[in-house]
Amino acid sequence: MTNFASDNVTGVSPEIMDALIQANNDHAAMSYGADRWTDCLKDKVSEIFETDVTVFPVISGTAANVLPIASLTPGFGTIYCHKEAHINVDECGASEFYTGGAKLIPLSGDHGKFSDRALEDAIFGRGVPRHTQPSLVSLTQTTEAGTLYQPDEIAAITDIARKNDLKVHMDGARFANAVVGTGCSPADLTWRSGVDVLSFGATKNGAMGAELVVFFGNAKIKELENRRVRGGHFISKMRFLSAQLTAYLDNDLWRNNARQANDMAQRMAKLLSNHSAIEFIHPVEANILFLTMPKAMVTSLKNAGFEFYEMVPGEERSVVRLVMSFNSSQSDVDRFALVANEYRA
Amino acid sequence: MTNFASDNVTGVSPEIMDALIQANNDHAAMSYGADRWTDCLKDKVSEIFETDVTVFPVISGTAANVLPIASLTPGFGTIYCHKEAHINVDECGASEFYTGGAKLIPLSGDHGKFSDRALEDAIFGRGVPRHTQPSLVSLTQTTEAGTLYQPDEIAAITDIARKNDLKVHMDGARFANAVVGTGCSPADLTWRSGVDVLSFGATKNGAMGAELVVFFGNAKIKELENRRVRGGHFISKMRFLSAQLTAYLDNDLWRNNARQANDMAQRMAKLLSNHSAIEFIHPVEANILFLTMPKAMVTSLKNAGFEFYEMVPGEERSVVRLVMSFNSSQSDVDRFALVANEYRA
Amino acid sequence: MTNFASDNVTGVSPEIMDALIQANNDHAAMSYGADRWTDCLKDKVSEIFETDVTVFPVISGTAANVLPIASLTPGFGTIYCHKEAHINVDECGASEFYTGGAKLIPLSGDHGKFSDRALEDAIFGRGVPRHTQPSLVSLTQTTEAGTLYQPDEIAAITDIARKNDLKVHMDGARFANAVVGTGCSPADLTWRSGVDVLSFGATKNGAMGAELVVFFGNAKIKELENRRVRGGHFISKMRFLSAQLTAYLDNDLWRNNARQANDMAQRMAKLLSNHSAIEFIHPVEANILFLTMPKAMVTSLKNAGFEFYEMVPGEERSVVRLVMSFNSSQSDVDRFALVANEYRA
Amino acid sequence: MTNFASDNVTGVSPEIMDALIQANNDHAAMSYGADRWTDCLKDKVSEIFETDVTVFPVISGTAANVLPIASLTPGFGTIYCHKEAHINVDECGASEFYTGGAKLIPLSGDHGKFSDRALEDAIFGRGVPRHTQPSLVSLTQTTEAGTLYQPDEIAAITDIARKNDLKVHMDGARFANAVVGTGCSPADLTWRSGVDVLSFGATKNGAMGAELVVFFGNAKIKELENRRVRGGHFISKMRFLSAQLTAYLDNDLWRNNARQANDMAQRMAKLLSNHSAIEFIHPVEANILFLTMPKAMVTSLKNAGFEFYEMVPGEERSVVRLVMSFNSSQSDVDRFALVANEYRA
Repeated sequence: MTNFASDNVTGVSPEIMDALIQANNDHAAMSYGADRWTDCLKDKVSEIFETDVTVFPVISGTAANVLPIASLTPGFGTIYCHKEAHINVDECGASEFYTGGAKLIPLSGDHGKFSDRALEDAIFGRGVPRHTQPSLVSLTQTTEAGTLYQPDEIAAITDIARKNDLKVHMDGARFANAVVGTGCSPADLTWRSGVDVLSFGATKNGAMGAELVVFFGNAKIKELENRRVRGGHFISKMRFLSAQLTAYLDNDLWRNNARQANDMAQRMAKLLSNHSAIEFIHPVEANILFLTMPKAMVTSLKNAGFEFYEMVPGEERSVVRLVMSFNSSQSDVDRFALVANEYRA
Repeated sequence: MTNFASDNVTGVSPEIMDALIQANNDHAAMSYGADRWTDCLKDKVSEIFETDVTVFPVISGTAANVLPIASLTPGFGTIYCHKEAHINVDECGASEFYTGGAKLIPLSGDHGKFSDRALEDAIFGRGVPRHTQPSLVSLTQTTEAGTLYQPDEIAAITDIARKNDLKVHMDGARFANAVVGTGCSPADLTWRSGVDVLSFGATKNGAMGAELVVFFGNAKIKELENRRVRGGHFISKMRFLSAQLTAYLDNDLWRNNARQANDMAQRMAKLLSNHSAIEFIHPVEANILFLTMPKAMVTSLKNAGFEFYEMVPGEERSVVRLVMSFNSSQSDVDRFALVANEYRA
Repeated sequence: MTNFASDNVTGVSPEIMDALIQANNDHAAMSYGADRWTDCLKDKVSEIFETDVTVFPVISGTAANVLPIASLTPGFGTIYCHKEAHINVDECGASEFYTGGAKLIPLSGDHGKFSDRALEDAIFGRGVPRHTQPSLVSLTQTTEAGTLYQPDEIAAITDIARKNDLKVHMDGARFANAVVGTGCSPADLTWRSGVDVLSFGATKNGAMGAELVVFFGNAKIKELENRRVRGGHFISKMRFLSAQLTAYLDNDLWRNNARQANDMAQRMAKLLSNHSAIEFIHPVEANILFLTMPKAMVTSLKNAGFEFYEMVPGEERSVVRLVMSFNSSQSDVDRFALVANEYRA
Repeated sequence: MTNFASDNVTGVSPEIMDALIQANNDHAAMSYGADRWTDCLKDKVSEIFETDVTVFPVISGTAANVLPIASLTPGFGTIYCHKEAHINVDECGASEFYTGGAKLIPLSGDHGKFSDRALEDAIFGRGVPRHTQPSLVSLTQTTEAGTLYQPDEIAAITDIARKNDLKVHMDGARFANAVVGTGCSPADLTWRSGVDVLSFGATKNGAMGAELVVFFGNAKIKELENRRVRGGHFISKMRFLSAQLTAYLDNDLWRNNARQANDMAQRMAKLLSNHSAIEFIHPVEANILFLTMPKAMVTSLKNAGFEFYEMVPGEERSVVRLVMSFNSSQSDVDRFALVANEYRA
C-alpha cells in the first residue's frame, strides 16, 4: 500500500529513530527537561531563526497551538483565524478550552488564506464591555489548502494586527514545507514579518511525536510552563522529545525531509496536470494537492493500492487530497500518476 | 552516576524500544489509532483485568488522570483525594482546569493513605445549591509515600463512595508496583474493589512516554474522546504509543519490571535497616523509600555519585527519597548501602 | 427628552414598583427563595404556558440565557444561533465562559431569523472526536431585528434539532412582544413548537431587573441551581425578584405592557411609511423599527429632544433603530413622526 | 415572627426604597450605567475612603467577590483564604469557576481569622511549573464568625502578601459592621493596611440587592468590565443599583444601619452573658453571635416566634447563630433574652 492520506501516517525518519536509541543509552539525563538535548534546543533554534528565541517542546500540534494561544489570549478575548484553520475545526475547541472560552472569528479567503483586509474588516469591539476583546490572530503556514503565505502577505496581516494590538501566532505544523516552498528564510517567514510565536511542527515531517513552541521577543512566556503542566503536556522523559527535535534540526534534516515531500508534490502535479478529467482546486505550493477527479478514477487508484482521502465524495466526481511525505518516493508518485492517467472517460 | 531520584529518570526498557523500531517498519498503519497495536490493546487489557474494559492511550500521567476525572466530574463538583496526591499538588491544578473549576478536598492520613472514615467525614453539601457537589474520589496506588492500599481498604473507601454517589478513580502511575507489592490480581485491586477507572502507568516502569486510561463498566466514556482531542492529547502517530503499551503488557514485562524495582527497594531497606542513624518514615511496600539520614551521610552519598532527592533538606538531618526502577541493579543498591553504612556519627 | 434608544432605558411599571414596596412590608420571608412570591411563580407560569414548568428567577438577560445553555451544553459542544444573536455578539462570550468553551456557530438569515435549512446545513461533526459536538440551538424571539418566528418556522427548526439530538433554547428577552405580535399562545410559541427552555424576559418590559428561566419537560435542571450560585446569580433577597415577576405576570401586565409597545411601533411605522426619504430595513412585527433616514433628519430629531441609536452612522444616511416601550405614548410617537415628516430633501 | 436567622432576611431600608422610587421618576437616565447615580458613586466612595477608587456596582456578594478575584488571579493561580470563608464554602466554587480553575488553599485560625504566620506557612510553589502560583489572599471582614481583624492584623497579613507578590482582596459583605465595630476609618481598614480591592456589601445592611467592588490604586481594572458582562452581571437598568448604593452611602446610612445591628448584638450578648447554660463560641465584635445553648432553650425560643439558625443541632445542646440587622429592635432583643433567661436546666 502506498499512503498519500496524510503526512502523519508515515513512520519516523531513520535519523530521528537513531537519536531516540542514543538518548536511551545516556544515563546522565534527569527528567522534565534537565538533559543535554533540551539544553541545546534553544541555541539551535536561535541559530536557525537568526534571533534569540524561547522554546517549549511538546508532544502534539494541538498542544503547540493552544499553549501559546492561551498564554496570549484572555478568556474574554477574540481570536481571528481562517475558517478552515486547524484550531477552528480540527481541535475540538482546544483554543476555546485552554483560554477559558475565547471566541474564534473565522475569516474567509481563497485557497486557505485570508488577507489583511479580511482581518481588518473582522476586527471590532475594542474597549466595549459587551464584546469580546480583539487579542490574537493565527495564520497557518503551510495552510490547510497546501498553499503558502509570502512574507509580504504575512507582513500586511501583522501590520493590521499591530495597529489593533493583536498578538500574532503562526500554526506551523508544516512550517518546514513552507520554508522550502517559499525559498524564504525561517526568520523572514516569522519574526521579521511580525510573527510573535510559532508552532513549529516536526511530527508530520519525520518525528515520532514532537513539536516546538518558538517565542520570538519577550511575550508572557513564564506562565506557559504552568499551563504546560496543567494541560498534561509536561513530559517526564523529555529528553526523548528533545532528542527527536535535535535530530530534526541537525544537518538540515527538517529541510531535506520537507524538500522531498514538496518535490514529490510538484512531480505529482506535473504528471497529473495534463489529464483533462483532473482539475486542481488549489495551487500546489508545498506538499499537498487538492483536486477533483472522476469517481471511477478514485476507484481505480484505490484498487491499485493507493490510500488517500476523498474529502468530498461525489456520485460523478470527488474532491481528493493527496499528501506527500518525507518518505514518498518517485516510484510511488509515478505509479499513482500512471494509474490515474490510464483512466479515460 | 547512579540515579535514585525518580523512576522517570530512567530510559526505556529494551523490549519497548524494540517495539518502537518494529512499529516504524510497519507501513499499513493509519493515524489516530487506526493501527493494529491500538486495535489489540483493549483485548490485552481486558484479559489482564478479567473483565471488559475501554482503554485510551495517552502520553502523560497528568493526561491519564484528568481526562477520566473531567469526564466524571462537573465544574461544580467536589473531588476527594489525599492531601499529598499528585492531582492535588503536582499537576498545577490540571484537575481544576479540565473540569472547569471543580474543588479538590484534601484528606489527611498517615503514610500517604486516607481511610474510609476520613472520606466519610469530609463529604458534605449534597443537594445544597451553595456547595459544590460530591462527585469523585481519587486514590493513588502506589501512594506518593510508596505505600499500598490493600483490597479491603479500597473496598471500604469505595463503599462510602457508592453510598454517596461518588465515582472512584485510581491514579495508578505506579500500579504495576502495587500489583507486585500486594501480590493481588489487577482485578482485585480495581473493579472488584469498586474502582471505576484506572490511570494505568507505564512511563515510570519502562515506557518512553505512555499511560493508559482503563474504564471498567459503562461510565460516560464516549465524551472522553472529545476531551482528549480538546486537551491536545490525541496523538496522530498513535501506533507508537500503542506499541509501547503492547510491549509493556506482553510477556509480563510490566510485572517483571515492577518486581525488579520492588525487590531492589526491599534489598535497600534491609541493607539500611540496621543503621542507627537512619530512620524510615514510611513502610517500604513498593519501589520507594522515605527515610531521614544525617546531612553528612547525604553528602557522602552525593559525592560517591548517587543522585536522589532531599525532600526536606535540614541542617542536621534530611528527609530523603530513594526510588528504585526497573533498571536499578543489585550492585547499585549494594554500593549505595555500603557508602551509607560507612557513615559513623 | 423622549427616549427610543432601547426598552431597557425605561423605568419600572407602577404595578411592579408597588409590588416591591409591598414585598418590603412582609416580614415572614426568608432569604434565597423561601418566600411566598417565589413559591407561587411556578404555578403562575405553568398556568400561562399550559404545562408544568420549572422556573428560576434571575437578575439579567445574560444570566437567563447562559444558565440553561450551560446546563444543556458540554464544553466540547456546538451551539447554533443567528449571527446577530445577543449570545453571539452582545454578552462578551458569556456562553463560551459558562459552558467551559463551547463553540458558537453563527447562522445567516434575513431579518434576524435563520431557517431550518440554514441550521441543517451548519450541523456537522457528530461522533467525530476532533470536532465539537452538536448540542444546542438558540433562537431569539423577538429577534434582534424586531421580527418574529411563526410557530411553524420554530417547529421546522426544532424538528431539525430533534433529528440531530440538539436541545432548543429560546432567548425571549422580548418574549412578551412576540406573544402579542404573533397573536399566538405562549405554549404554541414554545414547547408545543419544540422549545426545551425559555429565557423569559421582564426587564425590557417593565421590571426593574428580573428574568425567568422556564424549563418545559424534564431536562437536567437540578444542576442549574449549583450553576446559579457559582455564577453569582443566587440572590439572597430573592423575594424582590419574585415579587417583580409576580406582578409582571398578574393581571396580564406582561401582555398589556408589550401590547402598548407593539402598538406604538405599528403607529410609528404607519406614520413614517409614506415618507419617501425613509426606508424600512426589517418588517415591523414587534416593538422595534429599523430604518434608514437622511443624516439631516437624524439631526432634526435629536435636536427636537429624541434619543435613539444610529446603528450605522453615515455621511448621507444613517441606519436608525427605534425601540418602543411599555411607557411610550401616542403623543411621543406623533411628535417624532411630525418632526421626521417635516424634513424635505 | 422575629428573625435573627441572617441579615439577608431583612427587607430594605426606607431611605433606599425611597431612592428606588425617585430613580424611577427620572427620565434622563440611559442604560448600563450612563446615569447620574452611577456617575456620582466614584466620588462618594473616594471621599469615604480618602483616596481615589474605581467602583463597579454589582448585584450579589458572590459577584462582588469573584469579579475582582478573577481579574487578579490566573487559572493556574493559588488563592489563600480562611477555611470558613464564603468564597471557600458558600459560593459553590464561584472563584474556581471565574478564574478558570484556580486552587483555593484553606487556612486555619481561631474565630474565623487567620494570622500572617498561617498565611506565610501555606505559601509555596512560586516559580515551580508543577505547582499553582501564589496569586491572591482573601480576608473576610467582618469574618464568618462575626469577629474583626484590627488594622495591625491586616497589615501583618498584607505584608506577607507583598513579600510573596500576592494581591489582597477583602470580602466585605459586612464591611460596615467592621467599620463600626473597630471604630477605625474605612481607609485604615483597607488600603492603608495594604488591601488592593474590597467587596463592599450593602445588601445585608439595608439594600435590596447591591454590592460595590472598590479598587484602590491601579490594578488590572479595565478587564473587569468585560468579565462583568461575561458573568451576566452588567445590569441594564443600572441606575436602580446605583441609586441604592447612593442612598446607602448618603447621610451615613451605611454606618447608622450597621451601628444599630452591632449595638443590638452587644445588647443581646450582655443580656445572655450571665446565663450559666449559654456559652459564647466567638467574641461578639460586630452583629453576629455564636453560642451554644441547651436544646430545650432552642425549642422555647422557636416556640416564642424567634427564627434563627441552629448551625450544629445536637441532642443536648446546639450551636446557634444570631444575626442582628439594621432593623433589629431593642424590644426584639429584650424579648429574646427574656425567653432565654427563663430557661432553667
